[in-house]
Amino acid sequence: MKELEKLMNFRPEIRVVDATLHDGGLVNNFYFTDEFVQNLYLANLKAGVDYMEFGYKASREMFNENKFGKWKFCKDDDIRAIVGDNNTDLKIAVMADVGRCDYKNDILPKNESPIDMIRVATYINTIPAAIDMINNATQKGYEATCNLMAISNAQEKDVEIALELLAQTDVKTLYIVDSYGALYPEQIARIMDLYMNTATKYGKEVGIHAHNNQQLAFANTIEAVGDGANFLDATYNTMGRGAGNCAMELLLSFLKNPKYNHYPVFRFIEDHMAKLKEDGIVWGYDLQYLMTGILNQHPRTAIKFTEDKRIDYADFYCELIERD
Amino acid sequence: MKELEKLMNFRPEIRVVDATLHDGGLVNNFYFTDEFVQNLYLANLKAGVDYMEFGYKASREMFNENKFGKWKFCKDDDIRAIVGDNNTDLKIAVMADVGRCDYKNDILPKNESPIDMIRVATYINTIPAAIDMINNATQKGYEATCNLMAISNAQEKDVEIALELLAQTDVKTLYIVDSYGALYPEQIARIMDLYMNTATKYGKEVGIHAHNNQQLAFANTIEAVGDGANFLDATYNTMGRGAGNCAMELLLSFLKNPKYNHYPVFRFIEDHMAKLKEDGIVWGYDLQYLMTGILNQHPRTAIKFTEDKRIDYADFYCELIERD
Repeated sequence: MKELEKLMNFRPEIRVVDATLHDGGLVNNFYFTDEFVQNLYLANLKAGVDYMEFGYKASREMFNENKFGKWKFCKDDDIRAIVGDNNTDLKIAVMADVGRCDYKNDILPKNESPIDMIRVATYINTIPAAIDMINNATQKGYEATCNLMAISNAQEKDVEIALELLAQTDVKTLYIVDSYGALYPEQIARIMDLYMNTATKYGKEVGIHAHNNQQLAFANTIEAVGDGANFLDATYNTMGRGAGNCAMELLLSFLKNPKYNHYPVFRFIEDHMAKLKEDGIVWGYDLQYLMTGILNQHPRTAIKFTEDKRIDYADFYCELIERD
Repeated sequence: MKELEKLMNFRPEIRVVDATLHDGGLVNNFYFTDEFVQNLYLANLKAGVDYMEFGYKASREMFNENKFGKWKFCKDDDIRAIVGDNNTDLKIAVMADVGRCDYKNDILPKNESPIDMIRVATYINTIPAAIDMINNATQKGYEATCNLMAISNAQEKDVEIALELLAQTDVKTLYIVDSYGALYPEQIARIMDLYMNTATKYGKEVGIHAHNNQQLAFANTIEAVGDGANFLDATYNTMGRGAGNCAMELLLSFLKNPKYNHYPVFRFIEDHMAKLKEDGIVWGYDLQYLMTGILNQHPRTAIKFTEDKRIDYADFYCELIERD
């Protein structure tokens, strides 16, 4: 929290990224209705959100199109069916995972695509592959980000080296991704120092994508804002894998730039997200996610616990630490 | 966040206060079963919690005993039925509200009571009455805290004056109470500065009682820890009025003192709190509480919204700002 005195004002460089379809898609296998996506797009426009991520550009070689909704693949035509020519201030993003994306074929030159930004997601041990994807994207004319996943498991020196390598590309933004929801604000401050050092040196932006395992997704996001992060991921009603993400409604209420408006977010949640919950789609803070969070583990076991409709939390914790 | 380097270690002066019966009682009118309270007491013992608050010492002149569970009144004999002579390290606390407590009659001398600590709750405009209650409690032999409610609505100069007056009593701990869940960690840091100035001068402790309207109860609590707060309120599974409080399971997982153990908390939640939710008791973060939080309002309208089982969040927001 280094910007106490600036709480009343705003930093115009801040950009809000709606990651609902990406992270929420991990909850419902990307089976969003067109009506949902269309209205989410309209809500983002009204709310002043800067980027809307439509989902993943997943390889159709590796993933069966019949087993997922279309937003796992984000074909340009599917995006166009929602946004038309997108003559708006809202930019379109997609996520491209290292090792799970045929980026050379599936990502067209920017001037043939409705997409504006490619978000390259990587673990710390696949940086050269991430760099190849970043170069591919920027050469085709896109903005690019690099999202360093599971940052809570990476050693600081490795993060430093990775950031240095990445910063020498044309990547625009370097992201902290707290995949396991394991970090406390104090640790975010420390990691932000690392990121800002490199970002400042190379003229890059820093972003954050947080998870809510310890009810800290929003707190960690605003900690990062105070430390200089300008790219902020959020999802409507926290919808995202496991414990979910930083809530869009919280973030827009915090940011003081008058271009942001939280009312369309409330309206969208009421009109379109209650139905998801009625249909049995489950996400959000619960004890099993807290447990994987504090143990700094991938949430897959906790997601299984949820899917199996288990409520024996204490026994689950014993299972987790037995395997640790 | 002023103690980054101390994240791996712990501060032995820290005390955890279980406020489940107090704040949770505001959700279910204090109708906890004896089995629930007995097991909560045992869970607190196993978890290493320092204080267990049994509820309120509410005036039986003002409140009808037939309309509330017994923990609104916390008669000494009712506490004794749970804790016996309480030959343990867990201290017993009760809350005494200014203007709603017959403290002269209902609070017996310490040597006749199982209670260890009287927590005097006051708004900023009733400090002399709070001081009278504090003096009454300390003269009878109790530890006392003063809990300054709705701190987000108080002017800093008034808070300074109030703290200065309170610090001249034998009160042990001065509490920040974010009744409306309106504060961000940056603001907690600023208020902590005020409190710590007076506390250091007079040898008092500082405490925090947070609400979760913006999913910041835990984040604000650990911010305060970093700023020097040693008395930390939490409730099991966040159970408390409206959006609830700082979760005990999160707080004990964060604190590194080996005397704390989160496993009994998980076990208690599984064994005794799932039933409350099945019975229709509702608490925890939801949009209506976010709305009163960001508007810095008492949550009573949001609680009514919840009780009425309304889900028209966006309309509710319009009602709130119409009245603002």
